[in-house]
Amino acid sequence: MELMIPVQTSAEAKMPLYEQIYLYLKEEIRSGRLKYGMRLPSTRLLAENLKVSRSTTQMAYDQLLSEGYIESRPCKGYFVLDIRELVEIRETAVNEFFGEEQEKKNKWKIDFSPRGIDLESFPYGTWRRISKKILVDDKKELFLSGNHQGEPSLREAIGNYLHTARGVRVSPEQIVLGAGNEYLLMLLYQILGKDRVIGMENPTYKQAYFVFHSLGYQVMPISMDAQGIQVDKLEESGADVAYVMPSHQHPMGIVMPVRRRMELLSWAARKEGRYIIEDDYDSEFRYRGKPIPALQGSDREGRVIYIGTFSRSIAPAIRISYMVLPQNLLYSYRQNCGFYASTVSRIDQNILYEFLVSGAYERHLNRMRAIYKAKHDILLSKIRPLENKFEILGENAGVHILLRVREKAGKTVSEQELVERAAAYGVRVYGLSGFFIHPNHNEYPAMLVLGYANLTESEIEEGMELLKTAYLECASKK
Amino acid sequence: MELMIPVQTSAEAKMPLYEQIYLYLKEEIRSGRLKYGMRLPSTRLLAENLKVSRSTTQMAYDQLLSEGYIESRPCKGYFVLDIRELVEIRETAVNEFFGEEQEKKNKWKIDFSPRGIDLESFPYGTWRRISKKILVDDKKELFLSGNHQGEPSLREAIGNYLHTARGVRVSPEQIVLGAGNEYLLMLLYQILGKDRVIGMENPTYKQAYFVFHSLGYQVMPISMDAQGIQVDKLEESGADVAYVMPSHQHPMGIVMPVRRRMELLSWAARKEGRYIIEDDYDSEFRYRGKPIPALQGSDREGRVIYIGTFSRSIAPAIRISYMVLPQNLLYSYRQNCGFYASTVSRIDQNILYEFLVSGAYERHLNRMRAIYKAKHDILLSKIRPLENKFEILGENAGVHILLRVREKAGKTVSEQELVERAAAYGVRVYGLSGFFIHPNHNEYPAMLVLGYANLTESEIEEGMELLKTAYLECASKK
Repeated sequence: MELMIPVQTSAEAKMPLYEQIYLYLKEEIRSGRLKYGMRLPSTRLLAENLKVSRSTTQMAYDQLLSEGYIESRPCKGYFVLDIRELVEIRETAVNEFFGEEQEKKNKWKIDFSPRGIDLESFPYGTWRRISKKILVDDKKELFLSGNHQGEPSLREAIGNYLHTARGVRVSPEQIVLGAGNEYLLMLLYQILGKDRVIGMENPTYKQAYFVFHSLGYQVMPISMDAQGIQVDKLEESGADVAYVMPSHQHPMGIVMPVRRRMELLSWAARKEGRYIIEDDYDSEFRYRGKPIPALQGSDREGRVIYIGTFSRSIAPAIRISYMVLPQNLLYSYRQNCGFYASTVSRIDQNILYEFLVSGAYERHLNRMRAIYKAKHDILLSKIRPLENKFEILGENAGVHILLRVREKAGKTVSEQELVERAAAYGVRVYGLSGFFIHPNHNEYPAMLVLGYANLTESEIEEGMELLKTAYLECASKK
Repeated sequence: MELMIPVQTSAEAKMPLYEQIYLYLKEEIRSGRLKYGMRLPSTRLLAENLKVSRSTTQMAYDQLLSEGYIESRPCKGYFVLDIRELVEIRETAVNEFFGEEQEKKNKWKIDFSPRGIDLESFPYGTWRRISKKILVDDKKELFLSGNHQGEPSLREAIGNYLHTARGVRVSPEQIVLGAGNEYLLMLLYQILGKDRVIGMENPTYKQAYFVFHSLGYQVMPISMDAQGIQVDKLEESGADVAYVMPSHQHPMGIVMPVRRRMELLSWAARKEGRYIIEDDYDSEFRYRGKPIPALQGSDREGRVIYIGTFSRSIAPAIRISYMVLPQNLLYSYRQNCGFYASTVSRIDQNILYEFLVSGAYERHLNRMRAIYKAKHDILLSKIRPLENKFEILGENAGVHILLRVREKAGKTVSEQELVERAAAYGVRVYGLSGFFIHPNHNEYPAMLVLGYANLTESEIEEGMELLKTAYLECASKK
């Protein structure tokens, strides 16, 4: 097939060549002129036709690959993918986000959401008492705009917590508070600059991917093995920023061992300007083995940007996240973002400060650890008898686990079948496919991601019974 | 002078030619190799030397102009500016933001800050009562993540207010809440895309300029006349997004007349993809003449993005701003930003909702209007006897005015002299120069921006006495 792509090679062209080719092909695929299953010319052939270099066509194809428009089949070439699926998934995602709560209430009897948290156990009384105290104190300055990075007292309290609990090496001036991780990533975009290529574990935390994508970053999905992100693949990808979750990879549940951490830090140190974003999103909850300190604590070169949040350990509506910048990025932060007023209300910052220093936060965490541990144990006790059907993964930390569906005599129940059958019983489970940067990139066998934080113990039991029934029905049809 | 610029013209170059030239020259100026006052070659000559087109060199020079590295002198050519001033101003700005409050308390007796608000008159009691009520109501769902655009009830209340008070045509699904205007501009960046050129009134609200600049947008400063932004200059600039404050331009105080508004709307309608960002930052306060509805209300083509905030009408620490998107941008918003969780805490949203629907907000506004009017009148009564020295501008709305320093027999006291002399008396006044996108672009005579919101009536009187003394000392030295 010969493609006539009208590229503008003149020096006047405002857009790099590879981008012109990428955009042209994307539009052809989206419009349906290039159809599902069609083979594209090889990068070499296309380069010859267009009189451009092969690395240019390769870059264009790589971009299409990473966005899920085409796939590469070994020894066969590049093929157009079914983009209806792509568009649909994206749209479902958006609708899901919009109607989230309503949908949950109306449709699902039991929802194993990996994003849930247990709000029944939140110390509302304490929070209310602190709130009243802050408001009654009649500090008018709380209504004036405060410190741009966040209240110094709160930053100090967070720094102390991170040092003690997570081994983070931090002084308060390195901490920037923001209304949610996503906002902090928008600041990072302005600190690191836009000419960055982000390497992400695949599968990953899709929200972060959406932010990078929406900001216009090129994102390279990096495969994992049992130890986590594969550093050689990261090196090959050309990424200069790696976004990782070493304490408990979401969704795979992998805790990155020390050796891999060292490899990752060496990768960052090897070239000027490389950084690692460490998202330590649920490090508070761990059930077995010694807690492993944050990657940031082992970083001697100032390459790790540490991000954490109170969304999971307190409540999603408390819009307070924090970022620890290495010293060498503080100047860039102050130059490019120093003028931004804090996005967190000063009253809320003061409530959180009291919650931390009064010891209420620690008590809350200890209580939640016990509650989540009990739920975790019940879930596992329900799965153990099914271990000839499901393999359990990632069960040592966090508030979700993975179930790998085992093959039976060469046959296996597919993710989609199982998700749909469970849905018929009012049970919502999440296929691993939904966590891939591109759904067609799933290299894994059928797996389910089961969150249990927002379910009661009896809901967990009932949910697992129904899931088992659903599985047996699927398997009997094989 | 011949410049040897190593431009990479091959198709492989990752960067457009103009950007290579711009970056090279910027570095030469920053390093001091191209010195203050040196003349650059003409765009034609440079284009010939480098074998590129003249529009390429023009684009490079335009970028340097807009960032303040060079200036254009009519009939003479382009000259390197003194960048020490540029760097200094930027750094002062940052330090100012960081230490803002401390500095105010320690250093200034009377601060005519145009960003101040009167917090003595804030109804703390009401706010506290509502806060308690919200927390006592024991609505656990307030701790769950809520609607991505903001609570539907609050959006409806804001929509009603905007319709009644400002003539904004709005339905709640067009409203997006966010933690501050700056955050909303970051969302707009993702909605409108990064290949935009922003036209801004010059002088302007520098915070917005800093955001655009930090996001990497090219910003074109557009001159104003007595009616506001000059639409022909906007057209010439190549901008496709205009950021304007038609109700009360900051800092010039111009209220854009209807005819100019229509011209501006026609400009937007003339080409696909053009938009106007209307920042209606202090429309709540108006002292003379009929209130003019928002520009958005006259927009029939869906080209106006309306932005407002409660930072000034309630308090800076209440991090709640809102944006009204035209229908045709809703799809792009949902595609590119729909996944972002709201940056405003749900509890705060519910407090604000109660504050609005209980009528407390309206009562507060009416009270503030009277308070600000009284301060405004006192300030003016102190200036009137000095009208042979100062011309008053922009006194019909908002909470600041402008003083133009009149010439005396061909001589005039300079802005800097006056600011410094007043500072010696502990009085902080703000020269208009600080509001220009680039300080060297000030085309205006000496002017002061005087905010009076956070001063008491006696402070205003005392401050004006001291300012008069300072002026007389400056003038006597001429």
